[in-house]
Amino acid sequence: MGKRNTQLSLGAFLQATGHHVASWRHPDADADAGINFAHYKAVTQLAERAKFDAIFLADGVAVRDRAANLEALSRNGKLATFEPLTLFSALATVTERIGFIATASTSYNEPYHLARQFASLDWLSDGRAGWNVVTSGTEAEALNFNREHHFEHATRYERADEFVDVVTGLWDSWEDDAFGIDKESGVFFDQDKLHVLNHVGTHFSVKGPLNVARPPQGHPVIVQAGASEPGKELAARTAEVIFTAWQTLEEAQAFYADVKGRLARYGRSPEQLKVMPGIFPVIGRTQQEAEEKYQLLQSLIHPSVGLALLGGLYGGKDLSGHPLDAPPPPFPDDTNGSKSRLKLVRDLAEREGLTLRQLYERIAGARGHWTVVGTPEHIADQLQLWFESHAADGFNVMPPWLPGGLEEFVEHVVPILQQRGLFRTEYTGRTLREHLGLARPGNRHALSVDQASATLQTA
Amino acid sequence: MGKRNTQLSLGAFLQATGHHVASWRHPDADADAGINFAHYKAVTQLAERAKFDAIFLADGVAVRDRAANLEALSRNGKLATFEPLTLFSALATVTERIGFIATASTSYNEPYHLARQFASLDWLSDGRAGWNVVTSGTEAEALNFNREHHFEHATRYERADEFVDVVTGLWDSWEDDAFGIDKESGVFFDQDKLHVLNHVGTHFSVKGPLNVARPPQGHPVIVQAGASEPGKELAARTAEVIFTAWQTLEEAQAFYADVKGRLARYGRSPEQLKVMPGIFPVIGRTQQEAEEKYQLLQSLIHPSVGLALLGGLYGGKDLSGHPLDAPPPPFPDDTNGSKSRLKLVRDLAEREGLTLRQLYERIAGARGHWTVVGTPEHIADQLQLWFESHAADGFNVMPPWLPGGLEEFVEHVVPILQQRGLFRTEYTGRTLREHLGLARPGNRHALSVDQASATLQTA
Repeated sequence: MGKRNTQLSLGAFLQATGHHVASWRHPDADADAGINFAHYKAVTQLAERAKFDAIFLADGVAVRDRAANLEALSRNGKLATFEPLTLFSALATVTERIGFIATASTSYNEPYHLARQFASLDWLSDGRAGWNVVTSGTEAEALNFNREHHFEHATRYERADEFVDVVTGLWDSWEDDAFGIDKESGVFFDQDKLHVLNHVGTHFSVKGPLNVARPPQGHPVIVQAGASEPGKELAARTAEVIFTAWQTLEEAQAFYADVKGRLARYGRSPEQLKVMPGIFPVIGRTQQEAEEKYQLLQSLIHPSVGLALLGGLYGGKDLSGHPLDAPPPPFPDDTNGSKSRLKLVRDLAEREGLTLRQLYERIAGARGHWTVVGTPEHIADQLQLWFESHAADGFNVMPPWLPGGLEEFVEHVVPILQQRGLFRTEYTGRTLREHLGLARPGNRHALSVDQASATLQTA
Repeated sequence: MGKRNTQLSLGAFLQATGHHVASWRHPDADADAGINFAHYKAVTQLAERAKFDAIFLADGVAVRDRAANLEALSRNGKLATFEPLTLFSALATVTERIGFIATASTSYNEPYHLARQFASLDWLSDGRAGWNVVTSGTEAEALNFNREHHFEHATRYERADEFVDVVTGLWDSWEDDAFGIDKESGVFFDQDKLHVLNHVGTHFSVKGPLNVARPPQGHPVIVQAGASEPGKELAARTAEVIFTAWQTLEEAQAFYADVKGRLARYGRSPEQLKVMPGIFPVIGRTQQEAEEKYQLLQSLIHPSVGLALLGGLYGGKDLSGHPLDAPPPPFPDDTNGSKSRLKLVRDLAEREGLTLRQLYERIAGARGHWTVVGTPEHIADQLQLWFESHAADGFNVMPPWLPGGLEEFVEHVVPILQQRGLFRTEYTGRTLREHLGLARPGNRHALSVDQASATLQTA
């Protein structure tokens, strides 16, 4: 059922001033990036010139920083930014090929709204939209949506599962050729090519049809990022791209084999799900220069910020009394937040015997993602190794600061990947699906006569 | 407290192919307009060249056509189009001055999402966003949002009332100068300039703060369109623009005096609410040419479409058995739909003694809005009369078809209004508020010392 792509995919994971927690303090950073459209336009066009598959935005429906105090919060430069779907709609008009993957929560949205806005973005961009399906795991978000507590982990995933089905069902409301538009006869669409969803489930009752035509890609690309058991099952059943966070090749390989192995159960082949770990690259002409650049960023982290960030993983614990140069206090066994993130950080602390300060510095930089500090060749070698070792189909590049961190990757790392034949030198497709090597899904209602007959017999 | 503007305002109320129900069949219409960004870009830039205050989009969260049968539905050319907030975000990048007023329902949304997306649009457009606050009054919408029936009229308005308060409260989460962004000290924002809403009401509990900075306009412009009692009260308390539908000068004058008279009760002056009736203009070099243009459009209405449209006002009744050239069947006393629209149509039918066909033709054209068929001078005269007779502060122009219907208004009517000094020849402001002559609202939390002291004493 298809082959593995011979080239890797690249996404640019943009955060206002970059991924490092102190990125806004970097001398080159556009500190007002969060509400500066010219900034996003420039970095998106830069990623497009480098032939990236897509840019990616995370999202949350609250000021989610779990800082124990307002003093720490006031040092966070990423709290107040554009909303992803509106920002991407604007960016679609100033680009031609690059894809747009927007995160949107299934916990505090309604499927009709998201199906509609993603379909609209797909039309505005001529087939370049993707949806990163997440659940909301913070109390801060619950409190903005009429709840006292957020949904339990299992409920969140059950709701997400049904949510995705409703959204993809709504995208199939109209067949691709439903709109005949015959001015002469006055018939705008073919009655037989409109399908009413009539979904009635545990969490949602949605009749449909959607009031947007079927998207150019059929379905915008479905992306998933959770690494818990229900997250992996959701990905195996519905996702086409999975964003992950791994520190080591071995862990990444194990995860890659795990999720690819789950696909057959859903009648899917390994090529239908692309695994894209995050990489936080710090690039220097020499290893020493790269280390110095990293240290510059780390030196900008105020201790109150580092402790607040880490405190979130402890379930909101205030760590400010704990000595910075001693081992971190014991981790909780479980929280109702992101289980996969907690495990990652605990494993890191134990494996490397880090102090509290060292741990927050590691988290603060790439927040648990794979940090590679070195020359362009070293970074390209690592990407090649992970790609060829079946640890990754591509990478979600997380620039430490913007625009400089992305500029350096584009100028120095991308050309090496291209010289090695590992990355495209020109776009060959027009849609995000085509960039990623994903097939365009057929409409579930537009079955062939044979398929329809088979369906009737098994019903 | 300010004076009436000396010039009128103009909005361009865009529907995909235009407002006439058969507009998509017009020889010049872009029949695929609903998903054609180039079409919207061209008509928006045209309205901007003519110095319109804003373009306006209606909205609903369903395929809302209440056609009694699929055959009638299949003749509707406006069912599947872009979603307004994504479309406007894209249009913001290809324009510089014109405002964007998007309709969004308070019945099936959450205030945090809308506050955020409108704030984001206001930033993307440098202060050109407006929100038309509506309630959802169709069963089709309820069925897409987990309900069997839509909310009762009174509940809808109660919810809308609270919704607006939450949204404007969220927009004030950050003071205008909250973000000091001091790279040296590492402080991004001033702790004293962040305000947590902590709203707990009948319909919503929303803690805040919003994760977008305070919009450039302070608040995007609040627009309202209902003409029922609770609709008028909502407008008097919260709205800055009101869109209305009146057939006669006298009715429009009475409504104008009515809503302006309600403002003092809320400590507001008449200039703080602009009344903008819709006008559906059909323009010819002679009266006869204009009549012929109108007849061309009317001749394109298929009877099944006209009866379906009218049936919706009868609460979904199937009128297809009723003779077309006899009087319409008796109207229901009440429906749970739009009360103001029902009254308008019943009054029209009774006043002019129309047959069923004549009535659906009148509705189908401008759907109850003020239709003026004539020369550019005649249309300009009517607009001037309504403006100077205190029936309107401006008009929402509803082109019968697009792009031609807007082109004719821009080429032939706007210059007459400009020659008479009734409309601007250049933009003098940058934001939608400035175009409309509306003051920028202060942040409720940024009180002067005197105000804060007075608040404490009355608390």
